[in-house]
Amino acid sequence: MGSSFGDLFRISTFGESHGGGVGVIVEGCPPRLELDLQKIQAELDRRKPGQSKISTPRKEEDQVEILSGLLNNTTLGTPIAMVVRNKDHKPGDYKEMNVAFRPSHADATYQAKYGIQARSGGGRASARETIARVAAGAIAKQLLTKAHNTEVLAWVKRIHTLEAEINAQDVSIDDVEANIVRCPNQVMAAQMVERIEAISREGDSCGGVIECVVRNAPMGLGMPVFDKLEADLAKAVMSLPASKGFEIGSGFGGTLLKGSEHNDAFLPSNDGRLRTATNNSGGIQGGITNGESIVIRVAFKPTATIRKDQQTIDADGNTTTLSAKGRHDPCVLPRAVPIVEAMVSLVLADHLLRQQGQCSLW
Amino acid sequence: MGSSFGDLFRISTFGESHGGGVGVIVEGCPPRLELDLQKIQAELDRRKPGQSKISTPRKEEDQVEILSGLLNNTTLGTPIAMVVRNKDHKPGDYKEMNVAFRPSHADATYQAKYGIQARSGGGRASARETIARVAAGAIAKQLLTKAHNTEVLAWVKRIHTLEAEINAQDVSIDDVEANIVRCPNQVMAAQMVERIEAISREGDSCGGVIECVVRNAPMGLGMPVFDKLEADLAKAVMSLPASKGFEIGSGFGGTLLKGSEHNDAFLPSNDGRLRTATNNSGGIQGGITNGESIVIRVAFKPTATIRKDQQTIDADGNTTTLSAKGRHDPCVLPRAVPIVEAMVSLVLADHLLRQQGQCSLW
Amino acid sequence: MGSSFGDLFRISTFGESHGGGVGVIVEGCPPRLELDLQKIQAELDRRKPGQSKISTPRKEEDQVEILSGLLNNTTLGTPIAMVVRNKDHKPGDYKEMNVAFRPSHADATYQAKYGIQARSGGGRASARETIARVAAGAIAKQLLTKAHNTEVLAWVKRIHTLEAEINAQDVSIDDVEANIVRCPNQVMAAQMVERIEAISREGDSCGGVIECVVRNAPMGLGMPVFDKLEADLAKAVMSLPASKGFEIGSGFGGTLLKGSEHNDAFLPSNDGRLRTATNNSGGIQGGITNGESIVIRVAFKPTATIRKDQQTIDADGNTTTLSAKGRHDPCVLPRAVPIVEAMVSLVLADHLLRQQGQCSLW
Amino acid sequence: MGSSFGDLFRISTFGESHGGGVGVIVEGCPPRLELDLQKIQAELDRRKPGQSKISTPRKEEDQVEILSGLLNNTTLGTPIAMVVRNKDHKPGDYKEMNVAFRPSHADATYQAKYGIQARSGGGRASARETIARVAAGAIAKQLLTKAHNTEVLAWVKRIHTLEAEINAQDVSIDDVEANIVRCPNQVMAAQMVERIEAISREGDSCGGVIECVVRNAPMGLGMPVFDKLEADLAKAVMSLPASKGFEIGSGFGGTLLKGSEHNDAFLPSNDGRLRTATNNSGGIQGGITNGESIVIRVAFKPTATIRKDQQTIDADGNTTTLSAKGRHDPCVLPRAVPIVEAMVSLVLADHLLRQQGQCSLW
Repeated sequence: MGSSFGDLFRISTFGESHGGGVGVIVEGCPPRLELDLQKIQAELDRRKPGQSKISTPRKEEDQVEILSGLLNNTTLGTPIAMVVRNKDHKPGDYKEMNVAFRPSHADATYQAKYGIQARSGGGRASARETIARVAAGAIAKQLLTKAHNTEVLAWVKRIHTLEAEINAQDVSIDDVEANIVRCPNQVMAAQMVERIEAISREGDSCGGVIECVVRNAPMGLGMPVFDKLEADLAKAVMSLPASKGFEIGSGFGGTLLKGSEHNDAFLPSNDGRLRTATNNSGGIQGGITNGESIVIRVAFKPTATIRKDQQTIDADGNTTTLSAKGRHDPCVLPRAVPIVEAMVSLVLADHLLRQQGQCSLW
Repeated sequence: MGSSFGDLFRISTFGESHGGGVGVIVEGCPPRLELDLQKIQAELDRRKPGQSKISTPRKEEDQVEILSGLLNNTTLGTPIAMVVRNKDHKPGDYKEMNVAFRPSHADATYQAKYGIQARSGGGRASARETIARVAAGAIAKQLLTKAHNTEVLAWVKRIHTLEAEINAQDVSIDDVEANIVRCPNQVMAAQMVERIEAISREGDSCGGVIECVVRNAPMGLGMPVFDKLEADLAKAVMSLPASKGFEIGSGFGGTLLKGSEHNDAFLPSNDGRLRTATNNSGGIQGGITNGESIVIRVAFKPTATIRKDQQTIDADGNTTTLSAKGRHDPCVLPRAVPIVEAMVSLVLADHLLRQQGQCSLW
Repeated sequence: MGSSFGDLFRISTFGESHGGGVGVIVEGCPPRLELDLQKIQAELDRRKPGQSKISTPRKEEDQVEILSGLLNNTTLGTPIAMVVRNKDHKPGDYKEMNVAFRPSHADATYQAKYGIQARSGGGRASARETIARVAAGAIAKQLLTKAHNTEVLAWVKRIHTLEAEINAQDVSIDDVEANIVRCPNQVMAAQMVERIEAISREGDSCGGVIECVVRNAPMGLGMPVFDKLEADLAKAVMSLPASKGFEIGSGFGGTLLKGSEHNDAFLPSNDGRLRTATNNSGGIQGGITNGESIVIRVAFKPTATIRKDQQTIDADGNTTTLSAKGRHDPCVLPRAVPIVEAMVSLVLADHLLRQQGQCSLW
Repeated sequence: MGSSFGDLFRISTFGESHGGGVGVIVEGCPPRLELDLQKIQAELDRRKPGQSKISTPRKEEDQVEILSGLLNNTTLGTPIAMVVRNKDHKPGDYKEMNVAFRPSHADATYQAKYGIQARSGGGRASARETIARVAAGAIAKQLLTKAHNTEVLAWVKRIHTLEAEINAQDVSIDDVEANIVRCPNQVMAAQMVERIEAISREGDSCGGVIECVVRNAPMGLGMPVFDKLEADLAKAVMSLPASKGFEIGSGFGGTLLKGSEHNDAFLPSNDGRLRTATNNSGGIQGGITNGESIVIRVAFKPTATIRKDQQTIDADGNTTTLSAKGRHDPCVLPRAVPIVEAMVSLVLADHLLRQQGQCSLW
């Protein structure tokens, strides 16, 4: 528990920022899925630090190795293990942090929970942990494409105070990848890059909002009453480092409407699919997909690591000053885009198999 | 799966709005916990319909019966089963709804998923399902009180466009129960009641935001990396009917801050506890409680059932008009307050046992 | 955990011998399975005490009530809750047992584990707990019949020192039910009845072996490497009260053979099914069904409750004498036959859905 | 599911005989356990092929690498990942087997289940899979030693028709390791070695029985009603390749006794521990440990791979002859001894944490 996620399409991850590497076992993947291994590596490349000027200057080459579960790149139905070695780790960089609890980091709570911690590089709380999620999510994505041509696509919706108008139905992956901030509104994207650079120069950091859409989601995914699809999506993304909020469909804004304004009228249909005039439900009703696009948003707080002096305490509870020198990542959102896609894909793949398990026997 | 929640403190629920009743099995409750059974009933009374003029006129007497797991009101360590009989069910009331898919209800998606559904009263998607959560949560609450004097308290923060200023640290259960809308800001509460009554007269409905605080939470609860405490809290409340959004600590608003503004500085401490100058983290850092108050907010959409004519389709996909006559609940938030408390209590009890399981051996 | 069994077809049980009743929630049952409710009751009647002269004289009317999950006797896909009320409970009968730990019962270990126990009637360790298994297993049986015409049939193979020759392929349910000891070898059955009566007159008890066959099992059930089908079958029956051993196929006897004698040669086949010349594998190879009949055997120790004086200790560790007066059940095996069938059916139903979940997408 | 085992002390394994390697993630291990890494390697050395003249001539150097979860050899409480690279794999050796289904192997059933299989070396059904179990079990062993000085010790009780008299209370690890067949009865051990060599010369194979004892087991482990300790032990060892039967305590032989002969009388005790005059219960009563030694036995069939011609079929169902040339392992039992110990240790560690989780809060 804790490092595993999903029931039928289930992943178990491991790894600290120090040590031999990070990785994942994917259990329950259906057999006879031909994998494009380059697409797995491509998702890791979208996640890796140092890919642009607005990211951390730290460079990591996160080459994935697949240890099991495949025969000629085709899944066997047995566990798929993937490992990415730790390479760029320089313990010295974090030396000063060994003394003080970094504010809004996990140093203090790991120590409180376990009575021991791997401080170097953040240990298990390091963002490197998300490598395992992205690698596994890349397999889930290929499963979803093969099964129902389902597409999972995320982008940056807001950076600090800059929010972009985006029509979720029209966005393509090319729109998202057209700029380094991964905002499909190209005008806003340019401003966002400037904002991040400005905040970075101050030695400060910022957060924002990522939006994610799922197109061609099958009807019927999600299980009453606790494993509603939006509940599992919420858990999935709220388990990401730095996430502070989750919305589906109309979200918090929807609470300002009356029922007559918020209800999604059903449209006539003669092909067995459900269609609604509006999509305040965000593609899910009663916890179950209705076939309309799933739309969610995730809030990420500003990165905790900054290049400004901060007052804090050491492990003995005494006051000390933390002056984090060196590299810092002023905004993680552009790199978090593929991570959100991975988590959403994992939830959908799991629920697809669960639906198959219970409801396809006759 | 689907109707079970938690790992060590685990509940499994059952029941539709029709049929014999709804209920729950609580597995894993520690032995030798002396239960106050009246407190369980009292929580159910806070949840039940018809308790005030702003609730549905439908009255339900939800008397809980405990079938197992106790000896002289003390837990045996074996499963505790609780049942509430269905009594007030009048199939006729929902007759017209048998024809049309109600917009933004679960009728259509249940049909799509299962190929069958219990339309009468909403079936498994009925709000009666939450009875089981509240009964189980009332046991979790008593466990938390005994173990660490931990208090879980929720209230209405916003109704429709009316948002109350509330200092989460100062609110008491008496403040919350002082009015029928369960908003501890008494001035705002009066306005909220008026608003709900006005919207009800229109035959319409409204939603809002519930806030919940946990005081005296033990340090160390929550498990990296997927079962972070905020992730499990998010899943817990996003599994509630009508919930559309979740926030912890600074939430969506926190994304407007810079890192230097958002970070919670640690204060000197000589008693082994962690203290922070601010609490943007909402009591959780790196997925693990730091001992500060946990603060979350949940968005609820306006109730889907309204007394206005709506265009929709029937099971064959043809256009029809739904004119829901009779009773409707213009705003579920006051009754959802104990349900949110229940879900939060269940998550905490589960994580308390998980922490005990892994980290208390030596 | 502990009182739940299965993953996709999952049951959670509750109930002590005292208290309101015993029962079960069946989660994950596929929708649109039309249930014959009388067959559920019929299985409970095969299990209930007092059904023949060789059983306990205590009579229980175990009438099952279904509280949820059905519409016109057809499954909805939502949890099915079933309850059997405790009726015949007479606390006085067990009065003396409240003083002393009964040898080879669960009194002492429950006390050691939980620090509290419901002594009356055995509490959670009472055989009444198996009511829940049988009720749930009766649903699993109907699922297996509908899905693949799979048949699960058990019988008494040995009582005390009397072992019957039985050709597992030829036995029918009528052969089993033709006598009160449920041994399809009618000659041996008569001797077994005599033996049980003789041992009962001594105030003593006896055990034996139950054999179970599964015919028309689908190929492909079972999951490498830990959830091999024989592993889950072993757990299922070793969780029954009084079971002390498990065998599949050749079992312990098979260890006396050489590989060349033990291997099951594959026979030519042109219908895609696998056929083997012998069935030492017991229908399972590499943990996965090959379509041949599954054959298992379960050893049950003699009932611990006897009508003879026994030396034992009380809760303080002091020597005392236990003279169990009144009723006792000299041999539980005839009544355990439907319980073994239930457990085997539950395992198969679960693995059928698991196989469906992972391997039926394309 | 399938490749994971345990709840709180949970392992997930991966790997085929071909591919990059085999390995395991250990989740839930308590923090601050100082590991002796050499003991982990030593257990793998006890398992590896080619360690003696009665084993397969195939030599494997199974060097374990630990990728995560430790700081200076001390557990962090985070997942511990271990990998053993595949080295000795020679695909050519199994060439002929690619054509025919090997009798009593998993070739045919894997093909039936997944529609694809990694034939080379047995794929996921290869005995190399047990490397992961042994590595994880070696950590569980150290946990048990630290927590309660609990000792898990197994040995060969029978080879083919040769059964050794062994007093389970007196056996030491040195007695077991004193000969290559791992039978603590040294006279019988010599005969067993001769028997295996004789059968090997015939090109044939044999099986037998392994016995395992647990000393200093804590009282109170095991959970009613499905996760009784003997049920989880049965599943653990019945998931091993080639196992066909399981017994606890008196086992199948105990069914020949009457209740008055079989019951274990409690002895007076003044230290809070339970003591019984006999141990037919095998250390477990009502599914819960009573503190006496746990004693189990496991039946292993003769190895399926032999050096004799066998009739079988190919994937098309046509008759063919399989003449397995080259190496074969005439008897796996000596190497299975550490594997049985590993599985038993994993079950105990898991239940120790589960007991801690539920029953140590107050």
